[in-house]
Amino acid sequence: MKWLACLLVAVAAVAGVVARSAPGSGPADGEAAPIFGVKIPPGYRDWKLISVAHEAGNLNDLRAILGNDVAIKAYREGKLPFPDGTIIARLAWSYVPSEENNKVFGRAQSFVAGSATNVQFMVKDSKKYAATGGWKYAQFDYGKALADEATLQGCFNCHQAIKDRDYVFTHYAP
Amino acid sequence: MKWLACLLVAVAAVAGVVARSAPGSGPADGEAAPIFGVKIPPGYRDWKLISVAHEAGNLNDLRAILGNDVAIKAYREGKLPFPDGTIIARLAWSYVPSEENNKVFGRAQSFVAGSATNVQFMVKDSKKYAATGGWKYAQFDYGKALADEATLQGCFNCHQAIKDRDYVFTHYAP
Repeated sequence: MKWLACLLVAVAAVAGVVARSAPGSGPADGEAAPIFGVKIPPGYRDWKLISVAHEAGNLNDLRAILGNDVAIKAYREGKLPFPDGTIIARLAWSYVPSEENNKVFGRAQSFVAGSATNVQFMVKDSKKYAATGGWKYAQFDYGKALADEATLQGCFNCHQAIKDRDYVFTHYAP
Repeated sequence: MKWLACLLVAVAAVAGVVARSAPGSGPADGEAAPIFGVKIPPGYRDWKLISVAHEAGNLNDLRAILGNDVAIKAYREGKLPFPDGTIIARLAWSYVPSEENNKVFGRAQSFVAGSATNVQFMVKDSKKYAATGGWKYAQFDYGKALADEATLQGCFNCHQAIKDRDYVFTHYAP
């Protein structure tokens, strides 16, 4: 079942988490992921915001989805499929109650980004990655590429559920 | 009590919500807020990400905090107080379960950005806004400036709780 494959991907992602803060502007961008040959796109931490989300359950994170200029332009034009050159980045942090905020609000209501977990990318090239719907998938934990082939194939397996939106789940936040 | 003032601000903010999607790249930036004379900073929707959060309770939103280049540079340098010219934007959307994501995950765990609620700004000018800790506060609902003086004063009243971090609650997400 697709959901099981996705859950396994998610569990693998969590297993890759190192639970400490990552200072500075993000992981080093030198390392390549051998499976798809993806390097961390330089400057991704500075990309524009597509949207935000909270994943509860095993993931228990807060996430921001950022896009390079090609991605943002396509989203704002409502254009599908995404053009070649689109890159979408999913950053995530542990979901942490903020004691200092709660003190001010006078109740427990505020949840903020804790430690960085991992960053995932989708990179569009409809010819090169035709076998996986035109996208390559990659994941990095503190700059270290996730190299497990089955896990990365699991990304595509899950994303097939949203083939109608060119395999991209995230909507643009207005 | 400070928390009550903050809660009133939050309630006023919610009362200003129009529950529909705001298409495009954000509210029009022509209107000035009469109290502090703040106009919506042009292009704020394209600013870099500082962090994300979820406010439960009456707010029930997902939020992204974005910063102009001065803000981002100060955050990354760990520099306090923020320099004059810093602008921090807090965007927010209703906190909505994603049925299509939950179908794929096989459980109810995924919460995404729904309709835009309002956008708030903090603008730093230590001389001009000395009476309110060096910052002016503004809020816009679909491009319409919140003009209620008591509410905007309430922003400063709450933020005094974090005077030690130059009145800014949000930490930078690594």
